[in-house]
Amino acid sequence: MTRYKLLVEYDGHGLVGWQRQANGPSVQELIEQAAEKFCGNTTACTGAGRTDAGVHALGQVAHLDFAMPFSAGTVRDALNAYLRPAKVTVLEAELVSEEFHSRFSATKREYLYIIVNRRAPLTLEQGRAWLVPKHLDVKLMRAAGEHLLGKHDFTSFRAAECQAKSPVKTMDKIEISRHGETIQITVEARSFLHRQVRNIVGTLMLVGTGKLQSDEVKIILEKKDRTEAGPCAPAEGLYLKAISYKHPAGKLVTPPPKPT
Amino acid sequence: MTRYKLLVEYDGHGLVGWQRQANGPSVQELIEQAAEKFCGNTTACTGAGRTDAGVHALGQVAHLDFAMPFSAGTVRDALNAYLRPAKVTVLEAELVSEEFHSRFSATKREYLYIIVNRRAPLTLEQGRAWLVPKHLDVKLMRAAGEHLLGKHDFTSFRAAECQAKSPVKTMDKIEISRHGETIQITVEARSFLHRQVRNIVGTLMLVGTGKLQSDEVKIILEKKDRTEAGPCAPAEGLYLKAISYKHPAGKLVTPPPKPT
Repeated sequence: MTRYKLLVEYDGHGLVGWQRQANGPSVQELIEQAAEKFCGNTTACTGAGRTDAGVHALGQVAHLDFAMPFSAGTVRDALNAYLRPAKVTVLEAELVSEEFHSRFSATKREYLYIIVNRRAPLTLEQGRAWLVPKHLDVKLMRAAGEHLLGKHDFTSFRAAECQAKSPVKTMDKIEISRHGETIQITVEARSFLHRQVRNIVGTLMLVGTGKLQSDEVKIILEKKDRTEAGPCAPAEGLYLKAISYKHPAGKLVTPPPKPT
Repeated sequence: MTRYKLLVEYDGHGLVGWQRQANGPSVQELIEQAAEKFCGNTTACTGAGRTDAGVHALGQVAHLDFAMPFSAGTVRDALNAYLRPAKVTVLEAELVSEEFHSRFSATKREYLYIIVNRRAPLTLEQGRAWLVPKHLDVKLMRAAGEHLLGKHDFTSFRAAECQAKSPVKTMDKIEISRHGETIQITVEARSFLHRQVRNIVGTLMLVGTGKLQSDEVKIILEKKDRTEAGPCAPAEGLYLKAISYKHPAGKLVTPPPKPT
């Protein structure tokens, strides 16, 4: 078997999320179907981040195995050919060692959340950002975000359905910037709880409007109660931006096969 | 009559362009219909740039007159309410003097063209950029663009259906930048010929791939023959970015009416 690491981009609109589900098309299912059409065998594809319905990806990472050693370029182009017209694309394919696991080898996950802070409805960014008409004070949001940095019990920002063993996570980065009417929130951690990013963004939104004080976010965190935090921000503003790995994922155990 | 200047944003996908046409919905028609629903009378809306089918706008400018003096905020919100669910939105409305004319008072038009230069099909940017798989050398494109700066006869870059009296236009700016796989081309002129920007972009693309030399663009320009230049770049990568006016458009001849 030859393992390939895939860098995947998708428009989450109309998809049930990364993971296979009975109620609609998932990214995983679309890639597995494309792989099957390409190689003729059932192929399992594992993703690093199990994004929810409607969430987008700029840099999801997945891996799959083929019995035949194809060149990385062939895998990328063939999957893309069979993925059409789905809004899922393989940006890069890479031959990796069989020890590489997209999910368990990941050392850092980076998410981006986009808010458009204006009164007028969205046009080009419809389904790609959260429209917040009320003015948001980015400085207040930044001050609130600082309370979330570091190792904490994030129960207050965890979805009821979350399957993680522990609610304790370490937030390595929260960056909030404004470019005109667009507010970008970038967060980084080794891993996140279910809906953690969207629940944090919903809470930061309340801080930005002045409905919550920046320091109240510290109290919310300490209460370990989901009902204390703000609303869950909509899926359409969230992007899985990048996944990092300790060892270069492309490190090969065997020399690359000749291009087919 | 009270005149209002509108700053309009739209997703051109599925629209026949700015101007009213029999074969489908236009931005002009959608705004005029919204205005009619709002004030009860037939209202003509004039735009600064007559964008083609599929072309987007970040900052189209238009004007319309209402018999009743509404506040600018009321005009913006009411038009937006009646525009739903169209992907056309009024970002700003402003009370202006009756001498203001969105098209004839304009002193500068700025267009942005977005190319995504990669092999993988588009997902989030589908319908919002031109996918060019072959590598483009931005330095060569910049060198070619310099030949187009200044006052020239742009016959070689003019659509057959162009209605302009003269093919002579003055190009004030051509800026080409690359951010990762995204190439942005920004052009500025008082006015443009029909399809001039897209024909220029198609030609610059050929230069970027090495199929045309940078200096050949000067010869193409001098030949004054449309068949000499490159292909017309697709509409979906083009954005009407901004329109400038000599006098502040918002200058009022009468004090603003009280908000209604």
